[in-house]
Amino acid sequence: MTETRVPIPTLERLATYLRVLLDLNEGGVETISSQEMEHYSGISAAQFRKDLSYFGEFGKPGVGYSVPQLIECIERILHIDQEQPILLVGAGNLGAALVGYPNFRAHRFRIAAVFDNNFVKIGRPFGELVIEDIARLKEVNAQIGAKLAIIAVPASAAQTVADMLVEAGITGILNFAPTVLKVPPHVFVRNVSFLQELAVLSYHVAEGTEIAQPTGGHRDCAI
Amino acid sequence: MTETRVPIPTLERLATYLRVLLDLNEGGVETISSQEMEHYSGISAAQFRKDLSYFGEFGKPGVGYSVPQLIECIERILHIDQEQPILLVGAGNLGAALVGYPNFRAHRFRIAAVFDNNFVKIGRPFGELVIEDIARLKEVNAQIGAKLAIIAVPASAAQTVADMLVEAGITGILNFAPTVLKVPPHVFVRNVSFLQELAVLSYHVAEGTEIAQPTGGHRDCAI
Repeated sequence: MTETRVPIPTLERLATYLRVLLDLNEGGVETISSQEMEHYSGISAAQFRKDLSYFGEFGKPGVGYSVPQLIECIERILHIDQEQPILLVGAGNLGAALVGYPNFRAHRFRIAAVFDNNFVKIGRPFGELVIEDIARLKEVNAQIGAKLAIIAVPASAAQTVADMLVEAGITGILNFAPTVLKVPPHVFVRNVSFLQELAVLSYHVAEGTEIAQPTGGHRDCAI
Repeated sequence: MTETRVPIPTLERLATYLRVLLDLNEGGVETISSQEMEHYSGISAAQFRKDLSYFGEFGKPGVGYSVPQLIECIERILHIDQEQPILLVGAGNLGAALVGYPNFRAHRFRIAAVFDNNFVKIGRPFGELVIEDIARLKEVNAQIGAKLAIIAVPASAAQTVADMLVEAGITGILNFAPTVLKVPPHVFVRNVSFLQELAVLSYHVAEGTEIAQPTGGHRDCAI
């Protein structure tokens, strides 16, 4: 993992603010207060102001924030002021969901190529793309120059795919496979784990139905 | 959001440990050291020990942790020692990816019913299930008694679906729609945002190619 100057939770919230701002901008809204942002984003007004203060002076007292200016600024911070090509590996159901995801385009993310190793799939249309042979990954990316890639293959194939992506010049990987990828230090990986999310929910759903115990109720797990 | 006694990052890591342990157990491995867990999970041995210490005394010096006992214990902590039925709303590509996700079953999560509002889809097979009319959600869940649900519908429909889920007795929602859901305080929501993940990666990929600036390089964003 590379070092970061802006904390990851702040970056995540910036992406949420941006989504709200793009919606408002499309609706012709020109300014937004931090209270309005709290209403639309579910993130507190205080947190919003704190996140923005990280990047300098924003907003005018009594007027609020200019929506177009804030969009431009967050896009610059996140480096999505220019379109970002993305490679997608895995032309299954998850890949199809990602290719069809309507909000990517609005955020200047573009899935530029899709790869699979299944000979039945290679050459077939996939959204607006044609499925490429994974063996041609490096060759294809020499043309595209993508730095970002999405892994949407089974866990058993994910490490091999990650190695090929690194070899092809990718430095940021969004990994949907339930496995821990080994990558060189200059490559940054974000894992999306459906199971982790469900496990967290499962804990809360069960806790919510229990009477809170004053002494640690989990201590019975001692081995 | 309900209050939690175990920190969410710890719960997320427990799910990762559990995935590793189930794999090892299947391979007949009986004990694991914290160093081995670091190797398999990518989470440091110290963090692993710290997370477990939250729940009492684990492991034996020089022997390590019993894999089956640790599985049993984490499953009890996460309340997945019994099978958890889950409702899925949205029979699109993402829904298909989730229904086909091989690791759910190993973690005792079971998608028990799938719903859509598209008349063309209702009644059709979907994995091993048949797509139900969303209008029957409450009625169907009166039989199933699920507490967990997954929203895999477009953003424009997500709030309506969330309201119906709460009405049907759901208290934990995994939301894939890029929108902030309003739910009563007893309902816990986890959002999976592909855009947030890509935005964080985009920042890191761009930062990695720049020379670090001693004074804040983002200050040029001031309005």
